[in-house]
Amino acid sequence: MNAGRLWIVGLGPGPAHWMTPEATAALDQASDILGYGPYLDRLALRPDQRRRASDNRFEMERAMEALILAANGASVALVSGGDPGVFAMAAALFEAVERGDPAWRRLDIDVLPGISAMQAAAARLGAPLGHDFCAISLSDNLKPWDIVARRLKAAADGDFVIALYNPASKARPARIHDAFALLRAHKAATTPVAFARAIGRADERIALATLADADPDLADMSTLVLVGSSETRLIARGDGRPWLLTPRTYGQAG
Amino acid sequence: MNAGRLWIVGLGPGPAHWMTPEATAALDQASDILGYGPYLDRLALRPDQRRRASDNRFEMERAMEALILAANGASVALVSGGDPGVFAMAAALFEAVERGDPAWRRLDIDVLPGISAMQAAAARLGAPLGHDFCAISLSDNLKPWDIVARRLKAAADGDFVIALYNPASKARPARIHDAFALLRAHKAATTPVAFARAIGRADERIALATLADADPDLADMSTLVLVGSSETRLIARGDGRPWLLTPRTYGQAG
Repeated sequence: MNAGRLWIVGLGPGPAHWMTPEATAALDQASDILGYGPYLDRLALRPDQRRRASDNRFEMERAMEALILAANGASVALVSGGDPGVFAMAAALFEAVERGDPAWRRLDIDVLPGISAMQAAAARLGAPLGHDFCAISLSDNLKPWDIVARRLKAAADGDFVIALYNPASKARPARIHDAFALLRAHKAATTPVAFARAIGRADERIALATLADADPDLADMSTLVLVGSSETRLIARGDGRPWLLTPRTYGQAG
Repeated sequence: MNAGRLWIVGLGPGPAHWMTPEATAALDQASDILGYGPYLDRLALRPDQRRRASDNRFEMERAMEALILAANGASVALVSGGDPGVFAMAAALFEAVERGDPAWRRLDIDVLPGISAMQAAAARLGAPLGHDFCAISLSDNLKPWDIVARRLKAAADGDFVIALYNPASKARPARIHDAFALLRAHKAATTPVAFARAIGRADERIALATLADADPDLADMSTLVLVGSSETRLIARGDGRPWLLTPRTYGQAG
């Protein structure tokens, strides 16, 4: 039997110009490409490549399918939006390895990083992540609200810039409201907030607000929410949306 | 006068296969390329392109030079290691815009994101950033120790995975020791720690340890340090270094 291999491929936020050459090369070499249907639709696959689409909810099943195929000698690309390592497929894959067939631990597995949503959002906004920041996912059904609340509180205590991933889950539509209520109790009302939706795609949209005025319902499944630190501020532009800056200094008025 | 333009270009961690096509295209179009000398050395510039190298310590001067050139009609690429938005050139550039010539606010400025060091490290290690995480820079001379300590404490309170950037500064060699002392007081002795050095480059090196046993002096200027959450664990491999996993679940033993 040939030894198979498995790449966990980061596609980035959407456009081809944000996908690394490493990811492109792996997709070219793969015999089997697995992923959420809309991600696979972005790719120009050849007729000899097997396209294996699955629903976004079944990450563990998809990870196991990828491992089984690789263990049987296939060259498998398991695709992921953004960076597979950031709230995406890499964790599901290694959870499957941990629980599954011990032979999987001898497979040749590579994670290929990609541009994550917070980086695309930050690039469009200026430099909101210019100082210490944290990233918190609100959508994970596997994570109790207590730990989300503990982390939001800690992020406020540490005065981090906060990137909120997956702010609007169909299963838990109130979570983003609860998160804003908690942050409003711990951070200044004037803290800048950005809603960055589908950055890099045709329906890209950015909205800026203050923490006090922000409408959490602006966040849908394709939105990355950034909440500033006490140092984050706007830079007015002659025309167009202001830039958002979190400077490298701390405790010195700009 | 022609309107100039300015790209703040993320080169990623080093190898060409981690640089986005967008970054490559901007470098091709630029008349003037500014950056830290070793970063410029990675690029194959044409004879008609002006190479403007400067020392890594002079980020603000380099940002101002880029803005002046763009304001005078040049097509300027200001290059940055990793992602310009993550502890890199974007913040310095927008600080310069904020303080400088009001005409700079009308310039066409684009930030082009790149793969940051923590993503390259995570990709090599498995899925250490699979759950909520934060990123803290230890090197910034502009940041008082009090805020670093406050953020390390908050990161421990929130049980985040912690990515430490710039752990070893010539000006402040003791900071990484102070940071480990603080984390040891607030996190379990068995917490996995990874030292990921120069990932993607010829001298790439990874070391794993526990928080209790880790030697902070393993971190040099090219090292990204990852400190796990209470959920981060190792997955043994038949051969080779274990993978590092922070699962999507919380509070459930694997």
